[in-house]
Amino acid sequence: MSLIVVGSVAYDGVETPHGKVDRMLGGACTYISLSASYFTPVKIVGVVGEDFAQADVEFLASRNIDLAGLDRVPGKTFFWAGKYSPDMNDRETLQTDLNVFADFNPKLPESYRSEPYLFLGNIQPDLQRSVRAQMTNVHLTGGDTMNYWINDFRPALLETLRQWDFLLINDSEARLLSGEYNLRRAAEKIMAMGPHTLVIKRGEYGAILFRRDTHFMVPGYLLESVFDPTGAGDCFAGGFIGYLAGKGISPKNGDIPFAELRKAVIYGSVMGSFCCEKFGVDRFRTLTSAEIEARYQEFKNCTEF
Amino acid sequence: MSLIVVGSVAYDGVETPHGKVDRMLGGACTYISLSASYFTPVKIVGVVGEDFAQADVEFLASRNIDLAGLDRVPGKTFFWAGKYSPDMNDRETLQTDLNVFADFNPKLPESYRSEPYLFLGNIQPDLQRSVRAQMTNVHLTGGDTMNYWINDFRPALLETLRQWDFLLINDSEARLLSGEYNLRRAAEKIMAMGPHTLVIKRGEYGAILFRRDTHFMVPGYLLESVFDPTGAGDCFAGGFIGYLAGKGISPKNGDIPFAELRKAVIYGSVMGSFCCEKFGVDRFRTLTSAEIEARYQEFKNCTEF
Repeated sequence: MSLIVVGSVAYDGVETPHGKVDRMLGGACTYISLSASYFTPVKIVGVVGEDFAQADVEFLASRNIDLAGLDRVPGKTFFWAGKYSPDMNDRETLQTDLNVFADFNPKLPESYRSEPYLFLGNIQPDLQRSVRAQMTNVHLTGGDTMNYWINDFRPALLETLRQWDFLLINDSEARLLSGEYNLRRAAEKIMAMGPHTLVIKRGEYGAILFRRDTHFMVPGYLLESVFDPTGAGDCFAGGFIGYLAGKGISPKNGDIPFAELRKAVIYGSVMGSFCCEKFGVDRFRTLTSAEIEARYQEFKNCTEF
Repeated sequence: MSLIVVGSVAYDGVETPHGKVDRMLGGACTYISLSASYFTPVKIVGVVGEDFAQADVEFLASRNIDLAGLDRVPGKTFFWAGKYSPDMNDRETLQTDLNVFADFNPKLPESYRSEPYLFLGNIQPDLQRSVRAQMTNVHLTGGDTMNYWINDFRPALLETLRQWDFLLINDSEARLLSGEYNLRRAAEKIMAMGPHTLVIKRGEYGAILFRRDTHFMVPGYLLESVFDPTGAGDCFAGGFIGYLAGKGISPKNGDIPFAELRKAVIYGSVMGSFCCEKFGVDRFRTLTSAEIEARYQEFKNCTEF
């Protein structure tokens, strides 16, 4: 079933110990959509400028991503540049030009509104809420946020979270949102804000899925080398929601089986790990479903006892 | 089957965000032995001063730990004091008085020498080697080391490692020893130094077991609150080697089944997690085998998919 993904479509400049790319396709919406497209049809909502390359349009379309909701407006596409530390656990932002993204006010095409799955990428919480309000038949809603919205837009964010089924954030964001350092206690507080399901991403250390009084932990995939971690968290999100959408899983007809959420977390981890193997979105130019299934099996082999 | 454990027996002063204890039983040998004692008979080799309390002797003996190899000599017992950061991921050493431990030169009682299992705690590598040389029928040897020996006693350490079946160190030590940041590549290099099995501990993030071209990952147990992480890594070691010794597993009769090593890593994780629940060794005053088995099962429930 189709998944609506809302968020940034951007150009990125990235430097890692393995090399430097001055300008390449990026943005949360792009990574989430590419990742999810291996599991379910995706329709994106975003905005780009006149400089957005036809080759990038064609690449996204080649993954069967519906671009009806990708607005092209006068001006330049959102640009971000950053440089990673030698161990790649930190990065420094060198440049952020919001450009056309500064006035992003997502309007869903008519053809999107009755779709059942919605992932709201990290944008201003009121905008996230306005997107959901445009949907007429949503079965499962989830999304991401960041420290800026948690700190400076807290009331708006809390109002938004009340409507979500799941929230997918990293450990420092979970601590900031809940005011609790311990992740188990942080999770309890966050689930009391609305989402019945919480995924806390821990970068190279994996992720934890929380639901009511139970949780599931997956360690990070042990890559032989990390080329570029940009977008890995978004690819995790894409694998997670993509798997659920592809299987038609939602609380529409009763409780979501915890076993399916566990699988969704593994597919998220799988997609995040592939993302790091090449610069930017390059890994998705060649990645096959067979490779995804093989890595899913590898996760099983590496964690089962 | 009996396990020989060599290392420090000490008094510790510890301050964590949960409280402060000026002086309590500690030391790597103590933690390793207490933890292993739930799985197999343990005989310890260490040295203490005249101040070593009878109550502590009795506590160790109550866990069926053989103290024939615990020398009591004139002087004071090794004392260490440290203070943890608010998130407990860092600690600052406030005081280190080696005292009688400065001249520790382990001599095994006759009754220890034919035992099959040997765990060499973190002491000077030549001393570790001299202990093994005193054993007449060792089936499985492993141990721990630290940055000081890796940096300043490298040739001695490398000679020692050649004789070991397994090495159990943390991620920063693995990186230092191998010169590789990537843990997969670090593991390859370390296994080429001798040990056929390597366990890399990652604190709250769990551990990775490496063996030849395969590996197994376990996430850290998600504690509701961490009272005092002192000794958790040593308790991991005790659970790991204790499980193998208790089951009589060694390369003596062919290859060690990887499935048994996985279980040993889980028992290590279980014991490390219990250690953090109270100050010092206090958790081991009440811990039962039934609680250990229940947490083993909890690890399964939290990681299976």
